[in-house]
Amino acid sequence: MASSSVSELNDTICALATAGGVGAIGVIRVSGSQAIALVNRIFSGKDLTQQPTHTVHFGKIMNQQHVVDEVLATVFVAPRSYTGEHTVELSCHGSPYIQQQILQLLIDSGCRSAKPGEFTLRAFLNKKMDLAQAEAVADLIASNSEESHRTAMMQMRGGYSAQLTHMREQLINFASLIELELDFAEEDVEFAQRDELKQLVKNLLRVIDSLTETFDYGNAIKNGIPTVIAGKPNAGKSTLLNALINDERAIVSDIAGTTRDTIEETFVIEGITFRLMDTAGIRAQAADTIEAIGIERTFDKIQKASIVLYVFDASQTTDDELEQELKAFADINAIIIPVANKSDLLSTNNSHTYTKPILPISAKTHSGIEALKQRLMDVVKKEEVKNDIIITNLRHYEALRHASSALHLVLTGLDNRLSGELLAFDIRKALYHLGEITGEVTTDDLLANIFSKFCIGK
Amino acid sequence: MASSSVSELNDTICALATAGGVGAIGVIRVSGSQAIALVNRIFSGKDLTQQPTHTVHFGKIMNQQHVVDEVLATVFVAPRSYTGEHTVELSCHGSPYIQQQILQLLIDSGCRSAKPGEFTLRAFLNKKMDLAQAEAVADLIASNSEESHRTAMMQMRGGYSAQLTHMREQLINFASLIELELDFAEEDVEFAQRDELKQLVKNLLRVIDSLTETFDYGNAIKNGIPTVIAGKPNAGKSTLLNALINDERAIVSDIAGTTRDTIEETFVIEGITFRLMDTAGIRAQAADTIEAIGIERTFDKIQKASIVLYVFDASQTTDDELEQELKAFADINAIIIPVANKSDLLSTNNSHTYTKPILPISAKTHSGIEALKQRLMDVVKKEEVKNDIIITNLRHYEALRHASSALHLVLTGLDNRLSGELLAFDIRKALYHLGEITGEVTTDDLLANIFSKFCIGK
Repeated sequence: MASSSVSELNDTICALATAGGVGAIGVIRVSGSQAIALVNRIFSGKDLTQQPTHTVHFGKIMNQQHVVDEVLATVFVAPRSYTGEHTVELSCHGSPYIQQQILQLLIDSGCRSAKPGEFTLRAFLNKKMDLAQAEAVADLIASNSEESHRTAMMQMRGGYSAQLTHMREQLINFASLIELELDFAEEDVEFAQRDELKQLVKNLLRVIDSLTETFDYGNAIKNGIPTVIAGKPNAGKSTLLNALINDERAIVSDIAGTTRDTIEETFVIEGITFRLMDTAGIRAQAADTIEAIGIERTFDKIQKASIVLYVFDASQTTDDELEQELKAFADINAIIIPVANKSDLLSTNNSHTYTKPILPISAKTHSGIEALKQRLMDVVKKEEVKNDIIITNLRHYEALRHASSALHLVLTGLDNRLSGELLAFDIRKALYHLGEITGEVTTDDLLANIFSKFCIGK
Repeated sequence: MASSSVSELNDTICALATAGGVGAIGVIRVSGSQAIALVNRIFSGKDLTQQPTHTVHFGKIMNQQHVVDEVLATVFVAPRSYTGEHTVELSCHGSPYIQQQILQLLIDSGCRSAKPGEFTLRAFLNKKMDLAQAEAVADLIASNSEESHRTAMMQMRGGYSAQLTHMREQLINFASLIELELDFAEEDVEFAQRDELKQLVKNLLRVIDSLTETFDYGNAIKNGIPTVIAGKPNAGKSTLLNALINDERAIVSDIAGTTRDTIEETFVIEGITFRLMDTAGIRAQAADTIEAIGIERTFDKIQKASIVLYVFDASQTTDDELEQELKAFADINAIIIPVANKSDLLSTNNSHTYTKPILPISAKTHSGIEALKQRLMDVVKKEEVKNDIIITNLRHYEALRHASSALHLVLTGLDNRLSGELLAFDIRKALYHLGEITGEVTTDDLLANIFSKFCIGK
């Protein structure tokens, strides 16, 4: 597998493993059969090749006669390392200049710069983890809320893989028995009990379906729940956005790496991330082309949203008008929450009553914001599944769907008393798709695709 | 010393030691008498309190029943650590969310968030390094060129301190002998040979003066050499800036942390950093107030520069005109290099000859840029001192100057046959100032001031 990589697997690779920029310390990771020997060449201190695994040694990184840095070198002897190979981690001063110098020295000594995810790819190829666990490592690093952290951790620790492996093992048993029958085809024996197989496939389908059902929720907690703020111009959309974000900003402010180009703002309620998108005001008659484009983009965003907060000015909107405005959202899949803003301006003589349930708020005075957040959480929790294991990965979702299709064919085949040969074919197909998830079955392209999304040094 | 800190020195402190942001791994450092015990409370794995120093242990960080992360914990048993205290370094996944969670857990368990530089302050207070070495740690992390790295490394490794300590020891001997004389004042004995003392003080002054002479150069290589590009509008100043930077950009591009608010652009030639400042064009009659302010700022920058590249259009400037223009710089301390730009436009009929030596270049075609760089290096190398030890720190410079003044008083005193009492007073004063550098003498304010400039986690 991964033939393009296999030829390079003998290389010893190196990379900065800590975040870029200035810090107190930085860690450079070196892995491969020659890792300890190569680092030892530029290390002045104890002979690292003679040290036991999991020990730390103070010394100097030398460029000929010049001291590049004083470092701590941690030795991991294969197979007791992250990658399963010999590994050295050099803890140096957190100066990008020094880190670059040390990496250059390592490369001059015979190391190669690691590709993104190459350390974890090696861990996978050396069976330190399966593919689903490897993918969870990247998810874990990217996790920025309690829920996304919890699901990634569960997956990285193998909870999901264990469930899949258990299913595969049971299926493999049946596949083997059925294939054994084929060897005795003329004797018309049935080693594999068809009733038992049917029961097993039904059980598996129940598990797989409950897993695929978690995907929408899982995807939402991994990527944040797309939430659009829409409404007419001057309904108070931006004030609402600020009210929601400012309240929660303290939670997200020091989490780096939030993708800003596609996400306008994010905020977290009880561990769930919401991606909040402000939109251009919607008017029936756009004043000009630019405004028309803005409105078109608003509807693009709304199409992709899970939740739409439809903000209207409660002091100026009658029930009829609201009903009229909401008609524009009739064909939208998202959950529409009508939010009656400017409720602080209402008095008995200008307040309206509405047919639809509305949420009265004042984005300006922040009244009703807590109730709105509660409403958002209620929507999410309705989608939440009680399953401990949650699918967050589109690749896994698709593999489960394919496995499910194959198993449905097995069920139909059993009902139609299909030959063992055809049954075995569909069972193998289900096994293949389940195996894709944990990496029992892989292709070079698949591995390249998965690990290229990792950061360098992992 | 550092009374505000002493009361807090029993605290166990924690901080993220690696740069902020997403990376493959992050390292959290915990130091103090309770470091190992406190980490052990949230660590599921081997009992860390029972492990030998400099060993690494895989385990889980637990928040009650939840796994926060799988980590490597490195145990350093006092006094064998950076701070001299018990220390644990937790290597966790490089997710800011996870790092925050672990720090929160540590704080809940009884740790305190470390202040900037507090780990290094403790290393100093525990005599793992002297003050000059501690300051060099921060310089080393901030170093972004070969020369700034070399001087910081030399200082961190104690080369400078050794020289200072040697000087102090010799002086202390004499001070003691002279003070002994005071006890026998009535007997009019001289334990301290005045001739020897005079010779010693002269030697010390020679060393101190040669050190202080390195400061200008040291400061330049630490902070970059301020280089201003000046000239009339459209002389090609910005094109020259781009030509100089683009050629060298590859060297500086991946070094983070360059201060952008005061430094326009930097580039490095042979390990020396130049801070290049483009300026508003200089015209005798400013068109308006805004332009006048621009020109005023230009002259402000020129006042602070070490080098001024005066760019003029060689195709349109006669020798007389150049002489006239350069008069504006008559009172400037910086080295003025007249740069004849647009030399690619010159033919025999429009070329001028100049009285002053000029450097013909074409910023557009890059001809002459190499010669210009060589010229810049020549200027720097003239300032360069052969001393291995270079002073880069203003505080050290001032202390050396004060020590020098005191020693000059000793010399005068010796010439004037001053009493031992008065001589001893001036010697003690010199000792005090030399001691300030390595931290034999400190005040709370001094320490607070020095370490507050460190990053957190160091």
